[in-house]
Amino acid sequence: MNEINIDEICAWARAGGDTARKYFNHITGKRKPDRTWVTQADIEIEQFLRAQISDLYPEHGIMGEEQGIGSIDREFVWSLDPLDGTAAFLAGLSTWCISIGLLRWGDPYAGVIYLPMLDDCYWTDSNGVAYRNDSVIRVSDTNVIDNNDWISVSSNAHRNFRISFPGKTRSLGSVAADFCYVSRGSSLGALIGRASLWDMAAGLSILRAAGGVAVTLGGKPVETKPLLGGLTHSEAILVSTPVLLDQLHTYIQRVER
Amino acid sequence: MNEINIDEICAWARAGGDTARKYFNHITGKRKPDRTWVTQADIEIEQFLRAQISDLYPEHGIMGEEQGIGSIDREFVWSLDPLDGTAAFLAGLSTWCISIGLLRWGDPYAGVIYLPMLDDCYWTDSNGVAYRNDSVIRVSDTNVIDNNDWISVSSNAHRNFRISFPGKTRSLGSVAADFCYVSRGSSLGALIGRASLWDMAAGLSILRAAGGVAVTLGGKPVETKPLLGGLTHSEAILVSTPVLLDQLHTYIQRVER
Repeated sequence: MNEINIDEICAWARAGGDTARKYFNHITGKRKPDRTWVTQADIEIEQFLRAQISDLYPEHGIMGEEQGIGSIDREFVWSLDPLDGTAAFLAGLSTWCISIGLLRWGDPYAGVIYLPMLDDCYWTDSNGVAYRNDSVIRVSDTNVIDNNDWISVSSNAHRNFRISFPGKTRSLGSVAADFCYVSRGSSLGALIGRASLWDMAAGLSILRAAGGVAVTLGGKPVETKPLLGGLTHSEAILVSTPVLLDQLHTYIQRVER
Repeated sequence: MNEINIDEICAWARAGGDTARKYFNHITGKRKPDRTWVTQADIEIEQFLRAQISDLYPEHGIMGEEQGIGSIDREFVWSLDPLDGTAAFLAGLSTWCISIGLLRWGDPYAGVIYLPMLDDCYWTDSNGVAYRNDSVIRVSDTNVIDNNDWISVSSNAHRNFRISFPGKTRSLGSVAADFCYVSRGSSLGALIGRASLWDMAAGLSILRAAGGVAVTLGGKPVETKPLLGGLTHSEAILVSTPVLLDQLHTYIQRVER
């Protein structure tokens, strides 16, 4: 059963967004042991997604940011970030999202990312085409960087990297959203600090379907299988277009500390 | 006539937001001579705001980003940015706003900033209290910076400044929004590159009413009178709380080029 009902997954993401909106500006968070935030919204949305998946795809495994790693020795494993950008959510900012990725034998297979404040649903099934709502999206095909072009960077990039990109840098608060903006051809790239699989599973599917690429700063393709255990993080990652990846790389230098 | 009907101004900002939302994701921009962007949304909203102001306050002057400087030798002058964050708007991002500032003898007097995608209206009349929608807002009263605290920075800060702030930096795409997030106590500060009066007029009113401060990187209070002609820009500006301003200053170094 390799057919995924992607409309159904998008509907789950939208329902998760409704839950998040209900709590938005009316909730405080708690610090997790790694000092990042969790809220009642994160927890409720993940519970909801897990229930839907178990109901529709009982044979699949599930790993999620808040409720951990289920059986992952399966052909299909869902990798959930019920609220990517919880810190931004708590700050009253607008860029946070529900990220639902599906892996097959550990590789990105399909994904849905929903940004409630924009009502934007990014998605791909396993047919190699990416969408924002009803429109097909592709990464930018430019080979010239203008001073009004932009990339997104992680919120601690100012301490860890020296960046000489000639356009704008933005930091929005959500890794999953960073993937979406490259995928739709809006940003030319994203510099992502260490990330967990649930931050990237959906984003990588959408990015690749939109023609984008993701490599470690060391220059290797991003591999998801080693992250399947859920407790490890990737190295820093550079997301971009095939045409611009090498050029973007030259603008980014890690700061030795 | 020093009484301003602030409810009416908020209603104008919301109507401007409706216009912007209508064009959002369905519009392309044009480059202005300074290479920044303008769209039909910017133009329509400014026309609308000018018509409302001329109708209700015919004796007041108006300066706006898109249609220039009217008679500014008046006690009251409105300083309008009909769409602050046009580049973010064109990029499909969510942080852009309608900014309506009122100056009295060249000093910030009242202001309204509306973020349509969040349905957040920040405002102050001339009574020294700032609001987000119906709630009074104040800048943060913390004197300790945690690694989850954040400041906003301009989108070219990576080239112009070395920033060692121990928390997160975000770049959202709108100077007016930067003022709002400091004013509500969400961010601890904002590093703003050179800005025009229309980017700051409403934000400075709201910030000061919320207990915040704004200085040039040289350490002088931000003065709006010299910017009233509209064609000049401020130096880079640091916005923060009275408690944290000096500490924040130590984290920011201009890069000599």
